[in-house]
Amino acid sequence: MSTAERSLELHEKAIGKISVNSKVKVVTREDLSLAYTPGVAEPCKEIHQDKEKVYKYTAKGNLVAIVSDGSAVLGLGDIGPEAAMPVMEGKAILFKSFADVDAFPICLDTKDVNEIVNTVKYLAPTFGGINLEDISAPRCFEIEERLKNELDIPVFHDDQHGTAVVVLSGLINALKLVNKKFEVIKVVINGAGSAGIAIAKLLLNAGVNEMLLVNREGIIYEGAPFNNPYQEEMAKITNRGMLQGTVEDAMMGADVFIGVSAPNVISKEMISSMNKNSIVFAMANPVPEIMPDLAKEGGAKVIGTGRSDFPNQINNVLAFPGIFRGALDVRATDINEEMKVAAAYAIASIIEESELTPEYVIPDPFDRRVVESVAKAVSLAAVETGISRK
Amino acid sequence: MSTAERSLELHEKAIGKISVNSKVKVVTREDLSLAYTPGVAEPCKEIHQDKEKVYKYTAKGNLVAIVSDGSAVLGLGDIGPEAAMPVMEGKAILFKSFADVDAFPICLDTKDVNEIVNTVKYLAPTFGGINLEDISAPRCFEIEERLKNELDIPVFHDDQHGTAVVVLSGLINALKLVNKKFEVIKVVINGAGSAGIAIAKLLLNAGVNEMLLVNREGIIYEGAPFNNPYQEEMAKITNRGMLQGTVEDAMMGADVFIGVSAPNVISKEMISSMNKNSIVFAMANPVPEIMPDLAKEGGAKVIGTGRSDFPNQINNVLAFPGIFRGALDVRATDINEEMKVAAAYAIASIIEESELTPEYVIPDPFDRRVVESVAKAVSLAAVETGISRK
Repeated sequence: MSTAERSLELHEKAIGKISVNSKVKVVTREDLSLAYTPGVAEPCKEIHQDKEKVYKYTAKGNLVAIVSDGSAVLGLGDIGPEAAMPVMEGKAILFKSFADVDAFPICLDTKDVNEIVNTVKYLAPTFGGINLEDISAPRCFEIEERLKNELDIPVFHDDQHGTAVVVLSGLINALKLVNKKFEVIKVVINGAGSAGIAIAKLLLNAGVNEMLLVNREGIIYEGAPFNNPYQEEMAKITNRGMLQGTVEDAMMGADVFIGVSAPNVISKEMISSMNKNSIVFAMANPVPEIMPDLAKEGGAKVIGTGRSDFPNQINNVLAFPGIFRGALDVRATDINEEMKVAAAYAIASIIEESELTPEYVIPDPFDRRVVESVAKAVSLAAVETGISRK
Repeated sequence: MSTAERSLELHEKAIGKISVNSKVKVVTREDLSLAYTPGVAEPCKEIHQDKEKVYKYTAKGNLVAIVSDGSAVLGLGDIGPEAAMPVMEGKAILFKSFADVDAFPICLDTKDVNEIVNTVKYLAPTFGGINLEDISAPRCFEIEERLKNELDIPVFHDDQHGTAVVVLSGLINALKLVNKKFEVIKVVINGAGSAGIAIAKLLLNAGVNEMLLVNREGIIYEGAPFNNPYQEEMAKITNRGMLQGTVEDAMMGADVFIGVSAPNVISKEMISSMNKNSIVFAMANPVPEIMPDLAKEGGAKVIGTGRSDFPNQINNVLAFPGIFRGALDVRATDINEEMKVAAAYAIASIIEESELTPEYVIPDPFDRRVVESVAKAVSLAAVETGISRK
């Protein structure tokens, strides 16, 4: 049977991948009187007097909502909230299996930005954090921004920041290998959707100075006709040389290529036009912007993709479980840039310098040291930036 | 330690009573490729083509949202969404322990009727049913009514209908014991909030003809100044003799007294003024409208309360787990009157006629036969009324 057939079989047999379980037994009358009425009135009263005690007496502090409107699911696009459920349940079980976070899918029957923002605000009392997932750009930017401002729990759009964190972690190690520094490299990012913009911002925060962001119309430059205000904003902080042209033009002399765009849009020749010891992260799924063997022929030194069947898989599961674990552990009010950078360095640090090879700059998703390392680093960064409440 | 102290300890130790667990293992790369990407795309595509398949491939069909705004929690009143969490988590674990329903608390940070209705509509794709809980009257009526109309999954306000079903079940058995029929009894319901009105409606559906509903101002009659349109509606279908007066006036010659009001508002003398072989369900919590010993002295034959330390506890846990189990099992689009009446008869039927005594007209909440019996009866009623989709 193919993976597709076996996946269908698995889903049909389990009838969904999540369950909601009781952490306390309810077998006797006495159990009932403690876990439910009349005893339950006591924690209610305590929380009513001091709202922060909700973290002491309820599951809130370990509950994360995985919120999606099903508008940008995997490579499938706008398939709606019901069809998005298998992905959100999958995400929930990864949260649980990797980081013991109790995550619950919330698939929303609206694509209206205001309605999504309000809905998430209204249901926030139940949760310790909000993971936004598979919401299409540019709506995802506004939704995240408004929720971050209005809620006192962490809000994190994983498609943006999870990907960005893992890309940064791979780049940290790849640059060690080729002996280059963030400050001097030229980075080309092909794809200016949610992931592309988030990667650009995080790399700029990490010290990159020279960056070109490319969308379907070509290199983004200040004054170009823009798809949305978020690309316009990026034009002001990238491409300071005001270059105009295609992705081919952009890649000449670049040190790093990051693809979050479409299959087979990059040729061997474009790779050859890059600087020596080039780094290529081609993350289009399931078929990358350029296949690893071809990129290697073109002269790329370090190559990563989104796929598990090639070396250096750029997989969000390296980031989001540990990031939420760390944020929840110290009851952070946000997941800020410092926490993301700390997460990236923590992922990178799993591979010692002596172990680094071009085929091993990113740890295995099942390397259990990752979550712990990321969680610790993220907790510390939250405390150091003063957004911990514990 | 007191129950209160032990309950606090239990809640603090468990840090909440629910967890979200994985029904499939995620240990190997292969597991990941089936439960998550790339395999998960397959059930997504299937559901995108046929929305009903969400019941085949996801947990939706067994997921119930326990939705509250924390405005009418237990006897505590409007304590807000955070302080309501312990109760909603408690309800969730009862759903799980009694009927293997995966229920999840959704505590909402709004009391606006429109916002609550919209929020529940938006998050409905995730759930197979909605249990409304501890929402104050009269808002609960409009919220439930609108959601029932707009959603294709069951919506059930347990404070209303769960209570009504258990009261009806107790009454079925009590009437057998005193050899009276629904059609000829006179019923007084003291308290015209959400539970009182729901009980009144269900008893009318069950065949009661003579009924007086009493609120703080006295007996409700057509033309009286009303608190809300729902009481006004009730005035048209109860009290056909247009009686005006107090609860004391109402009770004279009554066969059944049902209290969902306040502690100690009924005297022994009022009980004595009732018809022979009277039935008294005094459900104010924790202190009933009249204590059982006093009611007995007054001449009551069958006495029930909301408390576990007296005979005949009228406890919603006898109804809601089996009702949802039955509705979910046949994918009912609603929980209609027929299903509620069927549930009540199913609960009553657990006690055989030869076992009936004045102290045993309602089964024990831990009698495991109840859930199965209720679920079967509710499923059957759904199928017979044509609202099953399976």
